[in-house]
Amino acid sequence: MPKIITLTTDFGWLGPYVGAIKGAILAITRDVQIVDITHDIPPQNIQMGALVLADATPYFPPGTIHVAVVDPGVGTDRALVCAEIGGQLFLAPDNGLLTLVYRRGPVGRIVRLENRRYFRPEVSATFHGRDILAPVAGHLAAGLELCQLGPVVSELKLLDWPEPTMTHQQLAGQVVGIDTFGNLITNVDDEHLRRFGQPEELEVEILGLRLDGIWHTYEERERGEILALVDSAGRLEIAVVCGNAAKTVGAGVGTPVVVRRKGSSK
Amino acid sequence: MPKIITLTTDFGWLGPYVGAIKGAILAITRDVQIVDITHDIPPQNIQMGALVLADATPYFPPGTIHVAVVDPGVGTDRALVCAEIGGQLFLAPDNGLLTLVYRRGPVGRIVRLENRRYFRPEVSATFHGRDILAPVAGHLAAGLELCQLGPVVSELKLLDWPEPTMTHQQLAGQVVGIDTFGNLITNVDDEHLRRFGQPEELEVEILGLRLDGIWHTYEERERGEILALVDSAGRLEIAVVCGNAAKTVGAGVGTPVVVRRKGSSK
Amino acid sequence: MPKIITLTTDFGWLGPYVGAIKGAILAITRDVQIVDITHDIPPQNIQMGALVLADATPYFPPGTIHVAVVDPGVGTDRALVCAEIGGQLFLAPDNGLLTLVYRRGPVGRIVRLENRRYFRPEVSATFHGRDILAPVAGHLAAGLELCQLGPVVSELKLLDWPEPTMTHQQLAGQVVGIDTFGNLITNVDDEHLRRFGQPEELEVEILGLRLDGIWHTYEERERGEILALVDSAGRLEIAVVCGNAAKTVGAGVGTPVVVRRKGSSK
Repeated sequence: MPKIITLTTDFGWLGPYVGAIKGAILAITRDVQIVDITHDIPPQNIQMGALVLADATPYFPPGTIHVAVVDPGVGTDRALVCAEIGGQLFLAPDNGLLTLVYRRGPVGRIVRLENRRYFRPEVSATFHGRDILAPVAGHLAAGLELCQLGPVVSELKLLDWPEPTMTHQQLAGQVVGIDTFGNLITNVDDEHLRRFGQPEELEVEILGLRLDGIWHTYEERERGEILALVDSAGRLEIAVVCGNAAKTVGAGVGTPVVVRRKGSSK
Repeated sequence: MPKIITLTTDFGWLGPYVGAIKGAILAITRDVQIVDITHDIPPQNIQMGALVLADATPYFPPGTIHVAVVDPGVGTDRALVCAEIGGQLFLAPDNGLLTLVYRRGPVGRIVRLENRRYFRPEVSATFHGRDILAPVAGHLAAGLELCQLGPVVSELKLLDWPEPTMTHQQLAGQVVGIDTFGNLITNVDDEHLRRFGQPEELEVEILGLRLDGIWHTYEERERGEILALVDSAGRLEIAVVCGNAAKTVGAGVGTPVVVRRKGSSK
Repeated sequence: MPKIITLTTDFGWLGPYVGAIKGAILAITRDVQIVDITHDIPPQNIQMGALVLADATPYFPPGTIHVAVVDPGVGTDRALVCAEIGGQLFLAPDNGLLTLVYRRGPVGRIVRLENRRYFRPEVSATFHGRDILAPVAGHLAAGLELCQLGPVVSELKLLDWPEPTMTHQQLAGQVVGIDTFGNLITNVDDEHLRRFGQPEELEVEILGLRLDGIWHTYEERERGEILALVDSAGRLEIAVVCGNAAKTVGAGVGTPVVVRRKGSSK
């Protein structure tokens, strides 16, 4: 069965970049299935890249090879790495893009990509996705051992990911991403909530709006209504039924979101 | 030869949703070819989803498995179905998304997806595409029989699709979709036109504009000119040569379009 | 190993077009790997299509079949061709889309697609991508010989591609494309530059701005700074570090770009 190689980038679909990286993989091995996760990570937005990787990759089978390229530091001395996490392989610049995947773990070996034998013969200064990550992914798919790629490293660079703070009175988090529907994705997850209280006894405040309860589906509320729910990735999300919460609420990445028990004073 | 599974969704390319659904298919079987039809159906626009499915799927080989997710009712008691239509399989929420495919037929068996054995072990309240449709598609690709999925149902929920009305004087339809080029796609098709009159003897009116004749290609007219033509899916379409008809004409979904014989009084 | 068929179009992801073309390929042969290069070429922009093909296709393995559809002349008597270039096959309308690929060469046989036996039984007037190019690509992937497709032709229609002019004083080019990041791609390439002078001794002028030196990576300069560099395809590019040069500079396709030796009078 051919290996799966997924792509998560900020290249956008316009331009030759998506094609070039796929070609550079297939030039090494054609016995591979290339899967587009997304090329629409907002340019250079490592945090959004980390979020998408965390929420998309766990569903793939063991042995999947994920190539992630959100790489504002291309051409500097930031490393490129291959990390074995959760039984899958992740190829990426070592710039924090793997933060959330790494924290979920379990983490196996991590190597720095240094063996130029598996790079394209000419490595450009600005497109390591095509010249290093793609051919290395192809070689891994064709059976190359991780240890051939370079020296083992003991840790990855991690983003300073915002953590919610929990007191007796409140659970305070923030918006960390916005999806296509305009849903506001927060750094509060179902485990934080479980420790804090019963979903139906809670309320959520964002930009002065109080949202009653934490729901399970959009359709429990009326069309146009703003609600808080736990989304399919286990994250607290603010949504508008059949609408766009980011626009309706006027919120963006970084907007504070506070969870309280109903009836508790502010 | 691996089975083909196509994806037609309103997820957009941003976010983890497209990746998660592909991963959930490949976790069941890797002996499959996943094909993106589109993820850019406007959010919750079931009508546009129905139109794209109708015009894209007939070209795929028999046995193709189509997964369609435009699902504003996720989490309610709307059913999920697998329908055998035209020698292919369609997995979708039973919300009208299969209206046009169903009407083309021929329709074989339809089953409601109830056998949880073929779902992901944990089914979220808001992402049945990943947790139910994707693994079921994977199992079907791996050889599962339709009848294993759940009880047979006798009909699908259909959209109240607008039908053109034909009198001796006129054929009255409306815009039902707009494509990337801004072409206005109507509910009038080549069969309606054939019954009404000879293309060259007809004129088309939209928002007070009279368009002379019904053409076969854009290039029969000058750059920038507005024209009516029968498009590649057999639908009457209003287009601007090398331009955007939706913007030029100021029309949208629902705008009336009337076909008359030339010289007939209004 | 299955053949690779790539797609480069201006269809956009919305609408049934991308799906229909993939279906029409797979209806001929399922033993093929379909690869999306892009569907986001700006509508009818043959020049941008030519640029993307030139910069994406060289990375694919020999024998790859590239289908390119930016086809404002569909339905006129413009030919459709299959050209053997650089050990790969290119299927496209003969409207200049292959200009840059052709100029790189080496060019092998070129045939005009005339043998209707390999078309879909019904050929529409407006969607030759689906009705001609896709099935022909499928047949080629399944082993059909080029010479079966139609008569050999001796040349392709080429775009009047702007060439930079070089004098002793200056190398004068222009912007020929803009990518997702807003980088301004010019018609000046690394060979022109090598013949003109040492990168570090040069300066670049665009819309009255003087940019000092020609760099290799974005990160040699500060965030927000405008710089000129040679990009990963070997083209002179104007970029803003972590920003959008097209917006910052206010430039578009056709904007003049002049390279001079530092200290030379204007």
